[in-house]
Amino acid sequence: MDKVGLEKHTSKQFDADLEDVRELVLAMGGLVEQQIADAVRALITGEGALGEEVVQGDTEVNRMEVEIDEECTRILARRAPQAGDLRLIIAVAKTITDLERIGDEAEKIGRMSTHLASYDRPKSAFYQIEMLGRHVREMLRDALDAFARLDSEAALRVAQQDEDVDREYEGIVRQCITYMMEDPRTIRHMLDVLWAVKALERIGDHSTNISEYVVYFVEGKDVRHIGLEAMEKEINEGAARRRGD
Amino acid sequence: MDKVGLEKHTSKQFDADLEDVRELVLAMGGLVEQQIADAVRALITGEGALGEEVVQGDTEVNRMEVEIDEECTRILARRAPQAGDLRLIIAVAKTITDLERIGDEAEKIGRMSTHLASYDRPKSAFYQIEMLGRHVREMLRDALDAFARLDSEAALRVAQQDEDVDREYEGIVRQCITYMMEDPRTIRHMLDVLWAVKALERIGDHSTNISEYVVYFVEGKDVRHIGLEAMEKEINEGAARRRGD
Repeated sequence: MDKVGLEKHTSKQFDADLEDVRELVLAMGGLVEQQIADAVRALITGEGALGEEVVQGDTEVNRMEVEIDEECTRILARRAPQAGDLRLIIAVAKTITDLERIGDEAEKIGRMSTHLASYDRPKSAFYQIEMLGRHVREMLRDALDAFARLDSEAALRVAQQDEDVDREYEGIVRQCITYMMEDPRTIRHMLDVLWAVKALERIGDHSTNISEYVVYFVEGKDVRHIGLEAMEKEINEGAARRRGD
Repeated sequence: MDKVGLEKHTSKQFDADLEDVRELVLAMGGLVEQQIADAVRALITGEGALGEEVVQGDTEVNRMEVEIDEECTRILARRAPQAGDLRLIIAVAKTITDLERIGDEAEKIGRMSTHLASYDRPKSAFYQIEMLGRHVREMLRDALDAFARLDSEAALRVAQQDEDVDREYEGIVRQCITYMMEDPRTIRHMLDVLWAVKALERIGDHSTNISEYVVYFVEGKDVRHIGLEAMEKEINEGAARRRGD
């Protein structure tokens, strides 16, 4: 595997500041991952109290976003970072925006789970929702791992999963529509289920965004909106450059 | 009205760079506003071709996001901006992320409108959707105006409208549920309508985010996640400081 390291500075304090901000992002990411896990469990099992905890827990996600943003601003103002250091700060600032929004999606799922606590669940749809929840949580974890290890190839693999997530999402939506048509009394509840499933699909999108920021930081290329093939090409070229081809 | 100006620099080029980036944001905002207007019109009238144009038009929104982001990075690297200049660049970088996501929401509405082109519309729900579309478009325009005029009080008025938008949204959702329950054959179409309405509600959220960045830039305070009352207090204190109370 082919990796790039953080640049080294004559100021040890600057190294420490950059390392701190990276660790804060990973801590925030870990918290958001737990929020997703709890929200999906509350949705699947009907544990309303756990859903409520997720809703409350979003405050801490928000607090961390503000804290890390302040730290980034402080580093920009004091250190005027250049090149890879500047890209790191930009990637961090963008990553925490997506983490905060993943937190909002988890909060929505938590809220929906409280609405659905006493609802008799159609088992097969909920099994698929559990699988989708696991899938998007893995995407987020892999994106954060790619960020921790500065690994753009791992980031690409995250982005490549988003189409599968979209397909799983579409399958669940179709199934929910069938339930609603068979028994229109379930419409209200099934809509809450659909909002929660939509939130999971959005978590996949945000995790893909984070993987794109990893590529931006490592390769120095903005790979948003260019498609998976072009993204892969940039990463392969970067790998070849680092091998000295 | 009480306003703050951009700082003046000994380097005229720096002034010009900051002014350019502000104008790019307003141009991108104007494009996104037009995308919303077209998407809502396509949805209401059933002009599928116009909906398709909105979908295609999102590429230009994405291109502008990347261009402005590059410009911000260039200014950070070359100028190492401080204080208000740094806040401007940060506010711009965040604003264009929300503008790009508003563009995505308009694209979704455009896509839904192509699904619904031949669908016989329940008039009263669609009248309310038109009103909601107008409302969130006004929120965006007002947020961009506040950004152009560096007016944090105007930004507060934008954020204050989001609760009304949420209420309008809830009303439309309830109406859609009633239609679906009365005639389950409409469920598939009404879900497309619901996704479009949800996208409008999200545009209100993103416009609120933009208004918060205006306050951050003007007042130097991060007012995300603190609630409307605390936001108003920060703005009033800022106004009092500028008056010299």
